[in-house]
Amino acid sequence: MSDIIVQKFGGTSVGSVERIDAVAEIIKKTSRDNKVIVVVSAMSGETNRLIDLAKHFSKSPDKREFDALISTGETVSSALLTIALQSKGIQARSYSASQISMKTTSSFSKAKILDVDENKIKDVLDEGIIPIITGFQGITESGDITTLGRGGSDTTAVAIASKINAKRCDIYTDVDGIFTADPKVVPNAKKLDSITMEEMLELASQGAKVMQTRAVEFANKYRVSVKVLSSFNESSGTLISLEEKSMENALVSGIAYQKDQIKYTLHGIGDIPGTAFKILGPISDADIDVDVIVQNVSVDGKTDFTFTVPIDEKPIVDAIIEDIKKDVSFKDVMVDSNIGKVSLVGVGMRSQSGVASKAFKALSENDVNIQIICTSEIKLTMVIDKSLVDKAVQVLHKEFNLEE
Amino acid sequence: MSDIIVQKFGGTSVGSVERIDAVAEIIKKTSRDNKVIVVVSAMSGETNRLIDLAKHFSKSPDKREFDALISTGETVSSALLTIALQSKGIQARSYSASQISMKTTSSFSKAKILDVDENKIKDVLDEGIIPIITGFQGITESGDITTLGRGGSDTTAVAIASKINAKRCDIYTDVDGIFTADPKVVPNAKKLDSITMEEMLELASQGAKVMQTRAVEFANKYRVSVKVLSSFNESSGTLISLEEKSMENALVSGIAYQKDQIKYTLHGIGDIPGTAFKILGPISDADIDVDVIVQNVSVDGKTDFTFTVPIDEKPIVDAIIEDIKKDVSFKDVMVDSNIGKVSLVGVGMRSQSGVASKAFKALSENDVNIQIICTSEIKLTMVIDKSLVDKAVQVLHKEFNLEE
Repeated sequence: MSDIIVQKFGGTSVGSVERIDAVAEIIKKTSRDNKVIVVVSAMSGETNRLIDLAKHFSKSPDKREFDALISTGETVSSALLTIALQSKGIQARSYSASQISMKTTSSFSKAKILDVDENKIKDVLDEGIIPIITGFQGITESGDITTLGRGGSDTTAVAIASKINAKRCDIYTDVDGIFTADPKVVPNAKKLDSITMEEMLELASQGAKVMQTRAVEFANKYRVSVKVLSSFNESSGTLISLEEKSMENALVSGIAYQKDQIKYTLHGIGDIPGTAFKILGPISDADIDVDVIVQNVSVDGKTDFTFTVPIDEKPIVDAIIEDIKKDVSFKDVMVDSNIGKVSLVGVGMRSQSGVASKAFKALSENDVNIQIICTSEIKLTMVIDKSLVDKAVQVLHKEFNLEE
Repeated sequence: MSDIIVQKFGGTSVGSVERIDAVAEIIKKTSRDNKVIVVVSAMSGETNRLIDLAKHFSKSPDKREFDALISTGETVSSALLTIALQSKGIQARSYSASQISMKTTSSFSKAKILDVDENKIKDVLDEGIIPIITGFQGITESGDITTLGRGGSDTTAVAIASKINAKRCDIYTDVDGIFTADPKVVPNAKKLDSITMEEMLELASQGAKVMQTRAVEFANKYRVSVKVLSSFNESSGTLISLEEKSMENALVSGIAYQKDQIKYTLHGIGDIPGTAFKILGPISDADIDVDVIVQNVSVDGKTDFTFTVPIDEKPIVDAIIEDIKKDVSFKDVMVDSNIGKVSLVGVGMRSQSGVASKAFKALSENDVNIQIICTSEIKLTMVIDKSLVDKAVQVLHKEFNLEE
């Protein structure tokens, strides 16, 4: 392991000149004993300001132009943070995606990182200069600007940490770490000192909102050690450990929820091989994350197929379903945006039975009706009415004694 | 000559979403009968907003970072204008300096254009797409972002027009064209339908403020036909003609003034060869434009050397003068920021005598004392007290019957 630490600062961490100044102090301190690479998001509010400008002209602006537009937010914050560091006597230099060849797919607004020129970054480090790199941005092979989707700066940081073989990737945000549940919903939720990568993966995709799922996947795949911590205080954060057993084998380590999904159910589908692919293939081609996928056993050769997607993808998914009608026969489509998801996550769950029934019982006693159940080895997800999500999180947090 | 028109829109022309929309209409109209290349400045106010952010951290921020920061303004406006055009059914695509290889010197904040990849632009035009190019920006050989200095977008436009052999370069601004004098100072100043490149060059450098001097020089050197016009109305603008005799041989075609200069006088300099270079060389190396340069005949081997520079370069010029003391002996330095310049410009002046004495007489009768006089073939510049500049412009405008 090298002595390099990658530090990523999110939008709220650099949301004002005062915050940028505070972040510069954190970097200055870390750089005393480590080589530091910094990845930075746009100042909070800036991306939305740019989106609002674009929306004046078009409800769905061309994605190439949209990405060129919103990527400027990161360019601004990287230059400002560099100037702030230099004013404190620290050698630093800003780099855009183009300048470090952060190559991505050409899937605008949702681009995936293909490669990054780590030698350029190493050269800068070797000069004793801290590179301040724009998160979120990429460039295609032909030089078009792309963006990685909301929260993409996390992925930028992990990708760089992986390529450069960094000791750790520190994700600075405005929360103290990962909690057993959202403290806004469960006031006595507990901060976890460490969590396994697998648990984090399930938590993040279920809406823990601290770190982008793709970044966690990246970290998991390339074995990058990640720490989530706050730039607003000196809290110790949560280490996302590469070892599996960090959670002292707790049965359930946390509860996640999500409210921004929409549920599609195709009724009366012919239960023939390849149907699921015919439906989900085009959705996946459109780079839309499908979350819960449920298909019941068929009755008389017909079945129901249910899946959830982010609610803002509705126009695209509607169009895709209209289009696949020619290939897939089904009776009708039911669309429900009034849903929410609650998940129990924990590596301990895989070896313990009874977690599911305990959860169902607790929810039922509190009048929370469960529409869909979906399980993985370390996760139990339940789709319920959106208005009941907060209550369900509180009930489950208590039921599994997570406040202790 | 090709059928390509380069249209450049300045900051006020794209200063709001409504203005961007109006500019898109101008482009749409022009594109019916011409191939169009667009060069765009940052939305007015945006560059200053970014400068203010940087100044929070440092009074003199590192110029590489400063350029990376402020160049984002043009990236934003080019993407927005592209989205606006697309929403009107016009095919357009935004390009940054990096994307069209707008190569410059590495003199940050004052970079000079070295070359541009016109083939990339031609390919886009051949696809039937209007390229919307960021003005003001460049990149160095090693990929650092540069800017061309205030008003540099004009230079970008002319450079592209030259390389692509465009029919004309239209500089859209918030004034109707070139006037015989600043209409704010002389209300009955007259708009000129055409003006020679030479006259424009003298007018621009003397503060007509419509178009950047360097851009006019560029246009002159590479024989690019330029038109200055307003994006706010359908005025016919002023054509800056390549022919010399457009002005019907008017004696004086216009009056220019400038108030943002500072005057240095080195007293008691040894009148030996190379002295002027020893003084002006380092100033020129610092990319500072020296305007009026006057040296009187020497008395007893000693002389006075006077020159003017933009007032905001004072700290740098002061340091340079301190530094050259070791090479050049002089008695003392007099610095005067309370000066202004007034110039008569006209190709007719070269063949007509009496212009100067007529001007001196008129000013003297109106109690305007002339400190320095400096002449070229088509220009007569007088340095006077700053508070008398407006009056002098009015007096001269009347004296030479320019309102007629």
